[in-house]
Formats: sequence, C-alpha cells, structure tokens
Amino acid sequence: MNLINGVPGDTIGINDRGLLYGDGVFRTLLRRSGVPLLWDRQYAKLASDCSALRIECPSQSVFERDFDLLPASDADCVIKLIVTRGDGPRGYVVPANTRANRVVTCGPLPAHAHPSAGSAARIRWCNTSLSVQPALAGVKHLNRLENVLARSEWHDPTIFDGLMLTAGGEVISGTMSNLFLVRNGQLNTPAIDRCGVDGVMRKLVLELAAAHQVPVIIGTVRRQDVQTADEIFLVNSVITLVAVGALETTKWTPGPLSTQIQRWIVDAQSH
Amino acid sequence: MNLINGVPGDTIGINDRGLLYGDGVFRTLLRRSGVPLLWDRQYAKLASDCSALRIECPSQSVFERDFDLLPASDADCVIKLIVTRGDGPRGYVVPANTRANRVVTCGPLPAHAHPSAGSAARIRWCNTSLSVQPALAGVKHLNRLENVLARSEWHDPTIFDGLMLTAGGEVISGTMSNLFLVRNGQLNTPAIDRCGVDGVMRKLVLELAAAHQVPVIIGTVRRQDVQTADEIFLVNSVITLVAVGALETTKWTPGPLSTQIQRWIVDAQSH
Repeated sequence: MNLINGVPGDTIGINDRGLLYGDGVFRTLLRRSGVPLLWDRQYAKLASDCSALRIECPSQSVFERDFDLLPASDADCVIKLIVTRGDGPRGYVVPANTRANRVVTCGPLPAHAHPSAGSAARIRWCNTSLSVQPALAGVKHLNRLENVLARSEWHDPTIFDGLMLTAGGEVISGTMSNLFLVRNGQLNTPAIDRCGVDGVMRKLVLELAAAHQVPVIIGTVRRQDVQTADEIFLVNSVITLVAVGALETTKWTPGPLSTQIQRWIVDAQSH
Repeated sequence: MNLINGVPGDTIGINDRGLLYGDGVFRTLLRRSGVPLLWDRQYAKLASDCSALRIECPSQSVFERDFDLLPASDADCVIKLIVTRGDGPRGYVVPANTRANRVVTCGPLPAHAHPSAGSAARIRWCNTSLSVQPALAGVKHLNRLENVLARSEWHDPTIFDGLMLTAGGEVISGTMSNLFLVRNGQLNTPAIDRCGVDGVMRKLVLELAAAHQVPVIIGTVRRQDVQTADEIFLVNSVITLVAVGALETTKWTPGPLSTQIQRWIVDAQSH
C-alpha cells in the first residue's frame, strides 16, 4: 500500500515541486516483521536532508502513524519515503506557507537484500561523472539524473553497481551505494563533502568501526586506491553490505573485515 | 485545464520517474490567441532534450492534439510541457519498454510577460553556484535544485532575477533566463556547454543577430565583463527580452541594441 500525506493513494499533484524541480528528498529502508530497521537513524537523516533544503520535515511520529496503516502483507518490504517541498505555482521561487508532501511506498524486498558472505559482487567503472556541488553534497535529494545516466551505462544484470568519479578523478561512490576500501586493516571511504550521498549505512559503518577500534580514513580516493585495496565493499540501507569480488578485471575474495562489519551491521539492525 | 497523457487531470503516478529522480525535461512557452508561440522551435528543443536523456519524446502532433483540447479560456496563457521517462519500479535502472509521460498545463500570463522598453529590471548576484556537468549542460531537465536554492537567496519582489556562476567564477545565466551583454555593438553570451540551459529564446536571439549582421561572441563571461558591459539583457520564452537597469550597484539605461532585438523577437513570434 502507498500513502500520500497519510491517505492511501497512488498519485501526487502535478504542481508538486518534487515533480517540477526535484525539490525534495527521499529515503529507502528495510522493514522486517513490521519494524523499519534503523528507523531513528533513517528519520534523523531525512530530517537533516530536509533541513539542508529548508523543507519543513513532517515529525517522526507522523511517519510512524503512516507505518501503522500499512497492512500485514507489507510487514517485510522496502519502504521508500519521499518528502517534497510541497505544491507551488510555476517558478523556482518558494511560496510562503508551502506545506511539504510526504509519500510512503512499500515495495518487494530485492534478491540482494540478504547478502551472504560467499556471494561477492561484480562491479564496474562508470563514465558519467558526479558534478561538484557542496551545497547539495551528502543530501539524498530528488535530483538524481547523474545516477540514472550512470546506471544506464550497462545492461548486464550480473553487474551489481558502478563506481562514479568526479571529473577530477576522485572516486566517490556507487550509483546506489557508498564505497569502503580496506588496506592493511584500515578502513577507507571517500569524503562526500563535494558530491555524493552521506548514507545511513555509511554512517553506521563509520560508527561501528570507531566502536571496535578499526582505524578509518575519510578522504580522497583515486581509481588506483580502489584497484589495489585488500578488500572492497559497498553499503546502503537495502543491500546492507555487499563484498566486491570483481571490479572489471581486478578480483578479490571476500575479506575478513568485510565479513566482520557485515555481522556488526546485522547486530545493530536488530537492536 | 491540465492534461496528463492527453486526459484532463491534475495528478501523476507516484512511480513516475520525473518525481522519483527528476528524470525528465520541460518547456515553458507563451500561448497567444490560441497559438503557442515559436512552437516549432519549442518542440524541436523538447525533442532534442528528450534525446539527450534517451527519453522517447511524444510526436509534435500529439502535443498539438493536446492543445486543441484546451478550452477557450486558455487561449492566452503560459503553457508548461513536462515529458518524463515514464513509470518505473524502485531503482535507477531504466526498465525496458518504459513509456514517457507527458503533462500539459496552462497558467496565467505573468505581469512581466509584456516587457516595455522603459521598464528595466533590477537583478543581483547569486551565491549558489552552478555545478559543471557536460552530460546535462544545455538540457532543460527536471533536476533544478540549484535554481531553487539560488532563487531562495532573495525575497525582494522587485528583484527580477539573479545571475549564477560556476564555482570557477564563470557567469552562466540567470536562475530562469539566459544572459546577453552588449559591448561596442557586439553581442556576448556565456557558453553553456558545461552547465546552464540552452533556451529557445537564446537560440532565437543568436539567429536574429546573425541575420542582421550583429557580431556575436559566445564564450567565457566573468563578473567584470557583466559589470562593464554597455547593455545587459535577459531572455526566456515567457519574459521574451528584459533589459537590465541595475545589477546591485551598477546601473544602465536600456540601450539601442536591446530595444532593437526585442522588436526582432516580437516580429519572429508573430510569424
């Protein structure tokens, strides 16, 4: 079932600024046995992203009431939340008293929502670059044409994701995931202060690493850093953690730290 | 009246990729006495923008049939056309056999749709930068958060538009208009091969200038080039041409070439 501002439905008004300008944000998360996983973190990120765009985010309890309306058949699903700035007349100017619109949808769990340690993913490089825009970096907003173009670069369904770089050659993320490298027991992930999405799962991995005294470097990652890493893995809130087995011609076997962090994530999700 | 895929209505499905990812393009144009102005040019640009995103654009006659459905009360209006890639399941991947959705809306003519030679506009500089993305440059796509953020920088209704620059300091355009400068009888407009929108009115002005032997330079424009120009004007398909009278503390009186080009545009619109 889908809910638009708390009411069952499948449509949104054509004056919604999410449609007109991509003027909104979204979240995608797992719901298991009726429980939205890492919900406090998900809501905090949603509210933070709204704040970055000066959109008034509906309160956490409003979404929880929406979840209560979902039927039992949606107990295990992928929840997608969209918050747009709301309706407006033609023009970029944000009208006074705009009220955010919220969309809650439930979709089927994808096959890759249960990664097993043995199934390492194949990935590739994308040619479509990520543009540099510090004002929007980190925010999961609805302006996602670069991701769409990058994802259109391949049709082979056995390729799990593609890595995107800036025009300057800095590796930032997958089209739909954050990237981690392991080198000499250290965790390394690209800074996302100029482009990319600061995902909930990325943040959780950084916190879990800190809690378990795994050293972390957040900074510039180049193509060669990825190719020469001991382990690579991708994370997002739906796939959780997926170890990379092949990046074009470079191969890996799933490594110990990827497996360990995957276990920590599962623990965190169940608390 | 609004039409969704040729049917009167005011909503679009929440699985529309225009809403989900800004995965679509749009046009805004004037309709006068039932005639959409510069329609062949508008459609050509719409089709070209769809092609850039590999969206299958509905044919020109499909839109013309839509226009025929509009009531007499919409004979003079601002028409907005949106073409999205169509509906899709969750995920950036473009499903096979996606069919574009089209939205046709009519809105009131804005007060500034009839610029008179005497009413020169006040404009300002924006702090929000335009990011560099050659794959999307020129295309009037639905990823317009940068324009929304830039337009949010001022609330003074007497300020007509704001000029946007790249992070590297190149002036590109207004938030909703293309920019032209005049210097020593030469016309100068920013290149839009790295960001910005290649608007229909921009293209028309360039063609009119060529037809009337006005020399044109398309290239890099810096802040100082704007401030020291003999004349400045902004164009888009709704405002047509608006001469700039003040850019913050720099002032101009509407100049002869702006006035001349305005007349040429009006002629072109009526043929």
